[in-house]
Amino acid sequence: MVDSAAYYIDDLEVGMSAVFGKTITEADILMFSGVSGDTNPVHLDEEYAGSTMFEGRIAHGILVGSLISTVLGTRLPGPGAVYVSQSLKFMAPVRAGDTVRARVTVTEVEVEKKRVKLDTGCFIGDRAVVTGEAVLMVRRRPQPKE
Amino acid sequence: MVDSAAYYIDDLEVGMSAVFGKTITEADILMFSGVSGDTNPVHLDEEYAGSTMFEGRIAHGILVGSLISTVLGTRLPGPGAVYVSQSLKFMAPVRAGDTVRARVTVTEVEVEKKRVKLDTGCFIGDRAVVTGEAVLMVRRRPQPKE
Amino acid sequence: MVDSAAYYIDDLEVGMSAVFGKTITEADILMFSGVSGDTNPVHLDEEYAGSTMFEGRIAHGILVGSLISTVLGTRLPGPGAVYVSQSLKFMAPVRAGDTVRARVTVTEVEVEKKRVKLDTGCFIGDRAVVTGEAVLMVRRRPQPKE
Amino acid sequence: MVDSAAYYIDDLEVGMSAVFGKTITEADILMFSGVSGDTNPVHLDEEYAGSTMFEGRIAHGILVGSLISTVLGTRLPGPGAVYVSQSLKFMAPVRAGDTVRARVTVTEVEVEKKRVKLDTGCFIGDRAVVTGEAVLMVRRRPQPKE
Repeated sequence: MVDSAAYYIDDLEVGMSAVFGKTITEADILMFSGVSGDTNPVHLDEEYAGSTMFEGRIAHGILVGSLISTVLGTRLPGPGAVYVSQSLKFMAPVRAGDTVRARVTVTEVEVEKKRVKLDTGCFIGDRAVVTGEAVLMVRRRPQPKE
Repeated sequence: MVDSAAYYIDDLEVGMSAVFGKTITEADILMFSGVSGDTNPVHLDEEYAGSTMFEGRIAHGILVGSLISTVLGTRLPGPGAVYVSQSLKFMAPVRAGDTVRARVTVTEVEVEKKRVKLDTGCFIGDRAVVTGEAVLMVRRRPQPKE
Repeated sequence: MVDSAAYYIDDLEVGMSAVFGKTITEADILMFSGVSGDTNPVHLDEEYAGSTMFEGRIAHGILVGSLISTVLGTRLPGPGAVYVSQSLKFMAPVRAGDTVRARVTVTEVEVEKKRVKLDTGCFIGDRAVVTGEAVLMVRRRPQPKE
Repeated sequence: MVDSAAYYIDDLEVGMSAVFGKTITEADILMFSGVSGDTNPVHLDEEYAGSTMFEGRIAHGILVGSLISTVLGTRLPGPGAVYVSQSLKFMAPVRAGDTVRARVTVTEVEVEKKRVKLDTGCFIGDRAVVTGEAVLMVRRRPQPKE
């Protein structure tokens, strides 16, 4: 087993939760701009961004949302799960220097369908900056042969 | 005006469309892993990934979805628009070397509410790999003073 | 058409202008050092750089000049143009935190030769930090068949 | 002395030469796109680039030219020299996987004016891909007090 953190659908229960935290830096914003190609000046140009309602550069919303994928793919359910869908609501801006904590909580488990639904959110302290919902397919625990 | 590609809500019409294309490389997957912290072995470990249903490493779904944000933030509606929400359905895996084209198409415009809805998708050739829907707030065209 | 911002040589006129702005960060200087291999301590070593006439680390001149290439390649003339030459004069240092605006202005158009010359400069506010001139080849507008 | 490779203007002679070589990778192109903001599809989108005269993605010309700055700033004349100007002619495309060697050769030394001119070029094997000329200011050797 590559990663002992991975769960089978049989192991998941409503209410289980996991977290991943990361400080968003200038370097994250720059590298994400390169990977996505998103050079919107609200992320890269302080003079422009300072003239907007955000009053300065902000991180890409999808960069922040990607931390949710990190928890799902590495902790709960972990490797082996297949990402089916993700919804994201962008509630508040995140800036370089902010520490964001992504939290996922199991809300529905359908063992036969191998399908789990999770409430997903990103927080700075207690304040939600991204919210949403994820659905994944998770394999069943191998059954002992009779 | 920093970017002449930016639209006002008054300029948007149902059916308007824009595209951004990018070839996903090993470097994209590596840098996205660094930025997101998502070290799921299905993205990074060929031996592990080869043993899964994907039969080899795949790009992060959110990395692929980020190209949608690029079209929205740089072309349609362009800089100045505020990202409200994005839904993503992950339809098929993307691998290093695949060229992905993100396309967004306006489906609803509410001028008074300054709100636009777009159909969003990522494609390899004609095949959808990510689908979804975006909502953004877009400022009104400045009115001439009487 | 991939990028509607691209111009044909037939569309270009003396005086046309475009701009791209970006805040130069520590991360830009670091990543540019990695890509170029330019580990000159005036860019990376605050103690050394503090002892020079620059009194602190400065960005690579070519990093700053690269913003000119960005305007040329993405806005004016845009994708499809072929970069023939670029001259750069380094007028003043740029530091992490400075917002630089690259501006290009068409100064000569030779439609038959498919050749455009542009005045190119990078500015912090009104102050030029890099100046120079660019030449590009730009394709002709496809002619309707008779 | 931080870097023993640095020369004083008094030490420079016409014909002196130095070289820096680097293999350009997908990662270089991606990171340079982020730093410069240059998302021209000829660098990032294999489908688009394949339809151009380049028949595939190419590195940014300024990325290739940046290797010249590396030789100047780290080897000849080395740290402490001040970059005055650089001209670049883009002769041939460079692709991920190509190993480029930047070579600079002193062509003029004006000791009193503390000014050196160098012939500068980037090569793949014997083939020039970028050519040009650089001018730098180089400090005088400290004189022993009488």
